[in-house]
Amino acid sequence: MDLTDLETPALILDRTKLDRNVARMREHLTKLKVALRPHVKTAKSIDVLRRVLKDPPGGVEREPGGITVSTLKEAEYFFSNGVRDILYAVGMAPNKLLHIAELRRKGADVALILDSIEAANIVAAKGQELGVEFPALIEIDSDGHRSGIKPGDSMLLDIGGRLHERNGTQLRGVLTHAGDSSNCSSIDKIRALAERERAAVVQCAEALKRAGLPCPVVSVGSTPTATFAERMDGVTEVRAGVYMFFDLVMAGLGVCTLEDIALTVMTSVIGHQPDRNWIITDAGWMAMSRDRGTAKQRVDQGYGVVCDLAGKPIDDLIVAETNQEHGIVADRRGRPVDLARFPVGMLLRVMPNHACATAAQYSQYHVIAGEPVIEAVWPRFSGW
Amino acid sequence: MDLTDLETPALILDRTKLDRNVARMREHLTKLKVALRPHVKTAKSIDVLRRVLKDPPGGVEREPGGITVSTLKEAEYFFSNGVRDILYAVGMAPNKLLHIAELRRKGADVALILDSIEAANIVAAKGQELGVEFPALIEIDSDGHRSGIKPGDSMLLDIGGRLHERNGTQLRGVLTHAGDSSNCSSIDKIRALAERERAAVVQCAEALKRAGLPCPVVSVGSTPTATFAERMDGVTEVRAGVYMFFDLVMAGLGVCTLEDIALTVMTSVIGHQPDRNWIITDAGWMAMSRDRGTAKQRVDQGYGVVCDLAGKPIDDLIVAETNQEHGIVADRRGRPVDLARFPVGMLLRVMPNHACATAAQYSQYHVIAGEPVIEAVWPRFSGW
Repeated sequence: MDLTDLETPALILDRTKLDRNVARMREHLTKLKVALRPHVKTAKSIDVLRRVLKDPPGGVEREPGGITVSTLKEAEYFFSNGVRDILYAVGMAPNKLLHIAELRRKGADVALILDSIEAANIVAAKGQELGVEFPALIEIDSDGHRSGIKPGDSMLLDIGGRLHERNGTQLRGVLTHAGDSSNCSSIDKIRALAERERAAVVQCAEALKRAGLPCPVVSVGSTPTATFAERMDGVTEVRAGVYMFFDLVMAGLGVCTLEDIALTVMTSVIGHQPDRNWIITDAGWMAMSRDRGTAKQRVDQGYGVVCDLAGKPIDDLIVAETNQEHGIVADRRGRPVDLARFPVGMLLRVMPNHACATAAQYSQYHVIAGEPVIEAVWPRFSGW
Repeated sequence: MDLTDLETPALILDRTKLDRNVARMREHLTKLKVALRPHVKTAKSIDVLRRVLKDPPGGVEREPGGITVSTLKEAEYFFSNGVRDILYAVGMAPNKLLHIAELRRKGADVALILDSIEAANIVAAKGQELGVEFPALIEIDSDGHRSGIKPGDSMLLDIGGRLHERNGTQLRGVLTHAGDSSNCSSIDKIRALAERERAAVVQCAEALKRAGLPCPVVSVGSTPTATFAERMDGVTEVRAGVYMFFDLVMAGLGVCTLEDIALTVMTSVIGHQPDRNWIITDAGWMAMSRDRGTAKQRVDQGYGVVCDLAGKPIDDLIVAETNQEHGIVADRRGRPVDLARFPVGMLLRVMPNHACATAAQYSQYHVIAGEPVIEAVWPRFSGW
C-alpha cells in the first residue's frame, strides 16, 4: 500500500523522524543522568510507546520511571498492554478514585497528583473506605501557568504530612510541569525556565525530607524544558510527550526544525477559487483540529504548513482558513498562487500546529519511513 | 443512573431542549413550504436523527430530501441504519469515488458535489470506468466564504452540460451554503444573507433549466439562514445541523438563547489558585475542543459558559483558559470569585462555543431530560 491508495484526510506518521526524535531526547536525558517517564497523551498508541521505551523487542519492557498519562482511558489501555508504572498527571477528581482503586487492585501502580489539604483529605477518606492506599504526588507550581502550590508555601508540609500519616494514602513525591515553556520567546528563556522548574521541585523535595517525610519521586517535565535543561540534579524523572512527533508550535519555539515534524495530515485538492488565489482541500478544522497555537508566535502558520507528498514544504503555502471539512490553502502573504500546479485530486501533506490536538482527531496512524509507502497501520484512541 | 455517577469529563445532551429545537426548525420550514435535509455532521448519532426525522417510531423513516453528510463515514453509518437518500456535501475528492460507487451499489443514493469542469471530467471518467452514474450537484458560491462558482458565471452551463451529457454522471441540481452567516453582526444581516443564498441558487437553477438541463434539487442551508429565512420560493430543500443542539456561537449571533443550548460538558473542580481567582477543572481543550468561535463576537465566552449541575449559568464564570486536560474557570472580567462555593469534586456543566467541535471529542452522549437523571446513553462517532 502506498499513500496514494488512501482516502483523505489521513494521519501520516514518519517513523524515521519519530525514531530520530526519540533517540535525541533519550541521549540528552542520559547525559543529564535522569530517567524519562514518557507522556503518552500525544501518541496514545502502544506501537509508538514500543519505539520510545528502552528495550522494546518482545513486548513492552518496564521503563525505569514508567509512563505518564492524562486520562484513565490511557491508564487502562497501556496497563492492558503490559505497562504497570503509571503516573496520572492531572489533579485528582473524586469521581475517578474508584476507577483508580480498581486499576490498582488489578496490579497497575497508578499514582495520582493533588495540590490541597482538601484533596488530600478526600483521597485519604476514599482510600480508607475502599481499603486501598493511593500513592499521591504533590503538584508544585513552578511558573504560575495553572495548578500547584508555590515553592515555599507552608501548605507543602501540611499536605505532605497528611498524605504520609493518614491511612488510605502514601506520599510518593513532588511534581511540576513548566507549561509556560510553550510561551517562551527564546531558547535562553526556555533554559532559564527549565532551571526554575528544577529548582522549584527540588526545593520542595528537600523541605519534605527535612521534615522527616519521604519523597522518592521528584518529577519535572515539558518538551521544551526537557530539551534545553542543562542539569537535573535532585530530579528523579522527566516527563515529555510531544517531542516524539513535534509540531509547528515546537518549531516556532526553536525546540525542533520543520524537518523533525513526524506527523502530517494528508489531504486532497478538491477545488480552487482563482479570484482569491485559494486552493480548497478536504482537510478542515476537524482534520487539523482548531488549534491555532502559532497565532501568537513570530510566524503564524495558520492551520498548518502545506507540503508535497514527500513531506517538503511548498513555497509559502499554509492552510489559511478552515471550515469543518474544508481547508483553504493560500500563500501566507496573500500573493498569487499558480493554481494549475495544484489540480483537483492532488495529494498534499500538512504539518499541524499541535500534534496532541491533531492526532486526537484520528483513530489510526498510517506509518511511513521517508518514502510514501505504508509500512504499518497503528491504531490510536481518544476520549475518556 | 444520575449525572453524579459519571466520571468527568462527560458529554451531556438535554433531550427536552433537543426536541424543542427540532420542533421549532421543522415548524418554521413547514411554514415556508420547503423540505428539511438535516445535516448529521454535528450529532453523528442515529438516536439523535430519529428525533429529527418526521416519523421516527419503528425505525428511521425516509425523510423527504434525506440527510446531508460531511464524511463518507457518516454515509456508511447512516446507510447501515436505514437511511438511503444521502447528500455528501463536501467537494468531491477523486480518492473517494470508489467508496461512493460501492455505497451506491449497495443501494445508498449518495450524491456528490463539485464546482469545476475538471472535477466533472474526473467524476464522469471514474463513473464510466466503474460502470456507475454518479449523481452530482453543482456548488454555487453565494457569499464568497469558500467553494463554488459565482451566480452568473458561464461555467455553470458548461459543468451542467458535461454532467448531463457524459456517461458516468447525472446532473442532480445546485447547492449553496451561506457559511458566512456565522459572521453576521445582526439578525437583519442574516435575513439578507438568507435571501441572497436563496436568490443565488434559484438563479442558477433557472439558468440550467433555460438551457434545457435538468435541475431537480435546489438546495440551500446553514442554521442561521434557515432560522431567519422569510421565503424559500424555488428552493426544494434546506440543510441545517447545529440547530439541533445549538451553542454559544449561535447564541452570540442571536440565532438561539443560552436556554436553547442542549449540549454541555460536565466537569469536576480539581483545585483552586486563590491568588488568581481561578477554579481548576478537568475539562480542558480536549474536552471542550480548541474552538474559540466567540472570540470575534460581541461577548467572548472563552472556552465556554460555566453552569451548575442543573445547567444554569453561574454568575459571570467562563472557562477563561485551557490546557489539554485542564480548564481554568474565572470571572469573565477577572473579578474576585468566592472559591469556597466551588469545593474540590463539585460538578459543573459548561456550554460549548461550537457543538460540532465539542461533540467530536466524545464517543457518547449521556442523555437527560431537564433533571440530572440519565435516561439513555447514545453512541456517536468521529473521524473518517
